[in-house]
Amino acid sequence: MDFTAQLNAHVARVERGLAKLVPAATTRPARLHSAMRYSLEAGGKRLRPVLVLAAADLFASAPLRSAGKKSALRSPHSAIPTAIAAAIAVECVHTYSLIHDDLPCMDNDDLRRGRPTAHKQFDEATALLAGDALLTHAFALLAENYAAQPALATALVRELADAAGSRRLIGGQMEDLLAEKKSDATPAELEFIHLNKTAAMIEAALVMGGLVGGASVRHLSTLRAAGRHLGLAFQINDDILDATADTATLGKTAGKDAKAGKTTFVKLHGLASARRRVGKESAAAIAAFKKLPGDSAFLIALTEQMQSRKR
Amino acid sequence: MDFTAQLNAHVARVERGLAKLVPAATTRPARLHSAMRYSLEAGGKRLRPVLVLAAADLFASAPLRSAGKKSALRSPHSAIPTAIAAAIAVECVHTYSLIHDDLPCMDNDDLRRGRPTAHKQFDEATALLAGDALLTHAFALLAENYAAQPALATALVRELADAAGSRRLIGGQMEDLLAEKKSDATPAELEFIHLNKTAAMIEAALVMGGLVGGASVRHLSTLRAAGRHLGLAFQINDDILDATADTATLGKTAGKDAKAGKTTFVKLHGLASARRRVGKESAAAIAAFKKLPGDSAFLIALTEQMQSRKR
Repeated sequence: MDFTAQLNAHVARVERGLAKLVPAATTRPARLHSAMRYSLEAGGKRLRPVLVLAAADLFASAPLRSAGKKSALRSPHSAIPTAIAAAIAVECVHTYSLIHDDLPCMDNDDLRRGRPTAHKQFDEATALLAGDALLTHAFALLAENYAAQPALATALVRELADAAGSRRLIGGQMEDLLAEKKSDATPAELEFIHLNKTAAMIEAALVMGGLVGGASVRHLSTLRAAGRHLGLAFQINDDILDATADTATLGKTAGKDAKAGKTTFVKLHGLASARRRVGKESAAAIAAFKKLPGDSAFLIALTEQMQSRKR
Repeated sequence: MDFTAQLNAHVARVERGLAKLVPAATTRPARLHSAMRYSLEAGGKRLRPVLVLAAADLFASAPLRSAGKKSALRSPHSAIPTAIAAAIAVECVHTYSLIHDDLPCMDNDDLRRGRPTAHKQFDEATALLAGDALLTHAFALLAENYAAQPALATALVRELADAAGSRRLIGGQMEDLLAEKKSDATPAELEFIHLNKTAAMIEAALVMGGLVGGASVRHLSTLRAAGRHLGLAFQINDDILDATADTATLGKTAGKDAKAGKTTFVKLHGLASARRRVGKESAAAIAAFKKLPGDSAFLIALTEQMQSRKR
């Protein structure tokens, strides 16, 4: 398998999906739809939607599906629906969370993915509404595109709403803000923030891919475990990059955490310990991927690449 | 039928539903959940969730259901699920929209339902996140509580996501903001704003109640038309109250529209014309309700009461 070719193919599919499954910038209200597309099209790694597509692919090969594995949701041999709408829904939620995160009342950041943040390019109100609209659109996408398989649609909505909800993504964001204010978060508090602010959506991406692919309950739980490890590795790596990389390479403001006196994994445990933990979590994610059916070489290579990323 | 007793019974059911179906203020993160509950529990008319419950009730009586009417979604004689989760989902979306509306970058309002707005009581970041969390929770509620009837769950998510989305609720909000800036919106622009910012969620409330009750496609479309008329009457009445009532009676800042130079129905067409239009839209809503099966006396009385409301 050529990892880079496969990654590029997944990313290209995501870009095509974004073009097709999000209202055009010219549709009324044009300013709102322009802001939604501005943030979606800023690029980024597309990690989460790629995870959805790759996880769905694991279960797509016919020999495995006829080997008697029971899907959590679908009867055997029924057509596998396309995972692209689920992938775009996840990217919409991720992008909304970045737009709201960047707002002046939150992180107050001017730069994201090397471009002005949404509220800098448009204005605060438009950015707020564009975030709201992306979050809402994610659920519309799932309900519309999987309507023919309503048990799947319902499971996808539930997974995404739980991962993005007050106990997970938004909960992690809330505790992150509180931790910033006191700037002496404990290791347990930081773990809560990382698990929820970052790992929740990475878990959900893998689980949603598995749901579309027809994974068994056991395989869904393996995907969730893999996502948790991958998410922790990813976030601790983010902390490392913020402390060691420069703004031009990152495409977002570097050194922001230290400047804000923010508690990060690096601040609490040191750079060497942070790097060890990234290695440990990445290895655990890879071990989980190896337990899954199908060819998990791509997900394993992706985990390794994430571990050594520069931005 | 005693209208007031029935209204109180519906409202009491909504209050019990809120207590049960939204995370307790003490669950982690407590500040986030407290802010969500603070805004939800500020009271208000509970118009939208009451509409969900009342619309579902129309289709709940056994004789009608066995008279050969075909539900859009369910087989005849299957158990009617409770509408309370759909009602609370609608109230969560409505409350989120108020919290975000009140933020400094939007309407910048300090008072809502007679109490400090969420960002005044907590802070801007917490209010932003509480709004995000209420919107997300609405979809979680639908997916969880109607999971046993996934076609219903999917239809409810789709209805709510469309009504709350970039072309409707948020789209109306966006155009409202743009209209405020130029303060010379045309009648057509104002109609777009009213239809989407206000009527969309009132339509969705009635349609979602109908979906839970098992309404036919034709009856769903009658409910949608009724909601459109009721929503327009409601919003034009809001414009009238803003121009004529005082802050203490309203429970929110009065005279705000005129002060902001905002285009309202009253400003564009005058008070007498606005009152006539409220009468006309209310009558159209009542005519639609009369086409529905079951006892629509409550919905008719509610429409009349809304027409003469003081806040």
